Amino acid sequence: MKTRISKAMATRLIETGIALTSINNLDELLEFIVHEARGLTKADAGSLYIVNGSNLDFLVCQNDTLTRKVGADAERGLFTVYSIPVSKQSLAGYAALTGEALNFPDVYNLPPDAPFSFNKEFDRRNGYRTMSMLNVPMKAPDGAIVGVLQLINSLDHNGEIMPFEDDMVAVVQALASQAAVAVKNAKLTAALMDAHLDTIFRLAVAAEYRDQDTARHIQRISEYTKIIAKSMGLPGRDVILIGHASPMHDVGKLGVPDSILLKPGKLTPEERVEMEKHTVFGGKILAGSESEILRLSESIALTHHEKWDGSGYPYGIKGGSIPIAGRIVAIADVFDALSSPRCYKPAFPMDKVLAILEHDTGIHFDPDVSKVFFGNLDEIQEIHRRMKESG
Amino acid sequence: MKTRISKAMATRLIETGIALTSINNLDELLEFIVHEARGLTKADAGSLYIVNGSNLDFLVCQNDTLTRKVGADAERGLFTVYSIPVSKQSLAGYAALTGEALNFPDVYNLPPDAPFSFNKEFDRRNGYRTMSMLNVPMKAPDGAIVGVLQLINSLDHNGEIMPFEDDMVAVVQALASQAAVAVKNAKLTAALMDAHLDTIFRLAVAAEYRDQDTARHIQRISEYTKIIAKSMGLPGRDVILIGHASPMHDVGKLGVPDSILLKPGKLTPEERVEMEKHTVFGGKILAGSESEILRLSESIALTHHEKWDGSGYPYGIKGGSIPIAGRIVAIADVFDALSSPRCYKPAFPMDKVLAILEHDTGIHFDPDVSKVFFGNLDEIQEIHRRMKESG
Repeated sequence: MKTRISKAMATRLIETGIALTSINNLDELLEFIVHEARGLTKADAGSLYIVNGSNLDFLVCQNDTLTRKVGADAERGLFTVYSIPVSKQSLAGYAALTGEALNFPDVYNLPPDAPFSFNKEFDRRNGYRTMSMLNVPMKAPDGAIVGVLQLINSLDHNGEIMPFEDDMVAVVQALASQAAVAVKNAKLTAALMDAHLDTIFRLAVAAEYRDQDTARHIQRISEYTKIIAKSMGLPGRDVILIGHASPMHDVGKLGVPDSILLKPGKLTPEERVEMEKHTVFGGKILAGSESEILRLSESIALTHHEKWDGSGYPYGIKGGSIPIAGRIVAIADVFDALSSPRCYKPAFPMDKVLAILEHDTGIHFDPDVSKVFFGNLDEIQEIHRRMKESG
Repeated sequence: MKTRISKAMATRLIETGIALTSINNLDELLEFIVHEARGLTKADAGSLYIVNGSNLDFLVCQNDTLTRKVGADAERGLFTVYSIPVSKQSLAGYAALTGEALNFPDVYNLPPDAPFSFNKEFDRRNGYRTMSMLNVPMKAPDGAIVGVLQLINSLDHNGEIMPFEDDMVAVVQALASQAAVAVKNAKLTAALMDAHLDTIFRLAVAAEYRDQDTARHIQRISEYTKIIAKSMGLPGRDVILIGHASPMHDVGKLGVPDSILLKPGKLTPEERVEMEKHTVFGGKILAGSESEILRLSESIALTHHEKWDGSGYPYGIKGGSIPIAGRIVAIADVFDALSSPRCYKPAFPMDKVLAILEHDTGIHFDPDVSKVFFGNLDEIQEIHRRMKESG
């Protein structure tokens, strides 16, 4: 099989393998795989199915003819995500089940004894004619089938549909193997990232366990801070980071005794001092991590009670000396506390909440952050409504 | 350059690329890269340097001649990990700095005007003669130099040293590019895993924040449970998992009020009921995660106070119905609590601790787990001594 790959194809596959491997985003990777496979085989269209338990999820569909006809945006609308079983009844299912490649010059004329049939539904709906088709399983080095690469309508120099050349099967198989490993790796990375984010969220939820605050409060803070950060023009990466880091702003409350944390009335000056230590405790719990998210959450825990005029705690720093993330969480946290019910107070009416925030702009809050907050008030209030405490 | 790669080499590189990409462990990956590069070039020896800031860390060294002379184990002892600066003064440093490959038939006769020189120290110490040498930078698709692959003494069919063929430079460069991406990915995965484990550890530490327990307690529990799990014959993967999951056994204490958690005297029956809820709270905080570690920690949080005879809490399950991880943490936790000082009690003398554990075997503790615990007592006590509370 391997000897059927030409030297030019082989050197191109080396490049492709390197390119594949450097894409970490799964969606981007899947699109790239189909794009490369179509380039190698001059295929008018191509799809990608990923094995999900005993099903194949249809995830990528590229079709030059339809794109020309209806435009790229409209074309994307033609395809819906769907699943088919891994079984001998479909071409892709057969390839996934048996690990064999299937190459047919015209899928409207399949061998009469073939166990699979071609579903003409898509063609009928979109006025397309699928003719030649190559289905290649994506096989990882351990033999596991990760998905199926489906190439449609190989085109000759005149743009006429021709069968996929037999020599190309080995080339696409090699590409599909490279793709299989790349997909496995991208999934592994995504799962690890999910596990990391999940644990961070639990750390935040655990901290709120002793308080009247709820998991909802944490989620709202995450949403509010992302809106503000994005609208302030922070880079996309920083917007995502603050969304993950801001829920941990009160993690240091774990270090505050119940007698103070849960006291119904006003705190004495001595108790206030103890309560305010939650910022420093939070900083300690989160200190010194290699994780970017935890490093940002350390900074937020330490600075979300600082005030623009320098009258905040724990350090009394002011203005631009307060990290931007701390300034953003400050207004989001106060807005959420005032507008939500607590066991010791009802939710304030919205006009009163906004009047307080407005009054404290330039005193407690950074005027620029405050401006952006009010500029996005509709979206922020929508989140407030949508993610209310379940009464 | 690319056209100089033969068809046979190119198809081999495709296979190598796939194999490289499927190795997630960094050390294993680096050894494999050198092994493959040596195979392609018939090199007697080979090394790998990884860029670390402005230095190159020397991480892999393979040498067939020395292995034959002294044996594989002794050979490994000949090499020490060291760093050299990325600079024009060394061959590897030059390749890393400039991105150029360097190929010399005899490094003892370098061009007199070369900015680099060859360090004969290793040869002198080990009675080796480095002659032909190929240094190839490992360049990622974004142009970043990840490391340098160094191949030494290409051998002809008779085992005689010959220069590295010029045609092989392009082949090794292609391999080095594949290796560069694989190394970057393996580092990314390792960093993500570290971040995940770091966050899990902080969750455990945060939970102990309100208690007399310390970060040391958590670390000791992790070590004890690993020793017991390993000695009970659990698969290596499960041993690692329990080491990461067991520190979170008491995370549910976050849900217990201070008045009960920190009460100096004996608890009333009502307070006991509240205190025992920490197992269920822990289960809730950790419930429903996709992370294997968190799933195991959920089970441990729920079951580490169950007893072998069914007299434990929260469910009163007994014997083999208690998950093995819960049975292991049970004995580790009691041993650590008894043998460590708490603000309300000094550490018990070791003979008293062991007498209690022995007495409770078959009542509180699984006899098999207890047997393994006592069978590894030396190692467990050594950890107890080494990781003592700093007074």
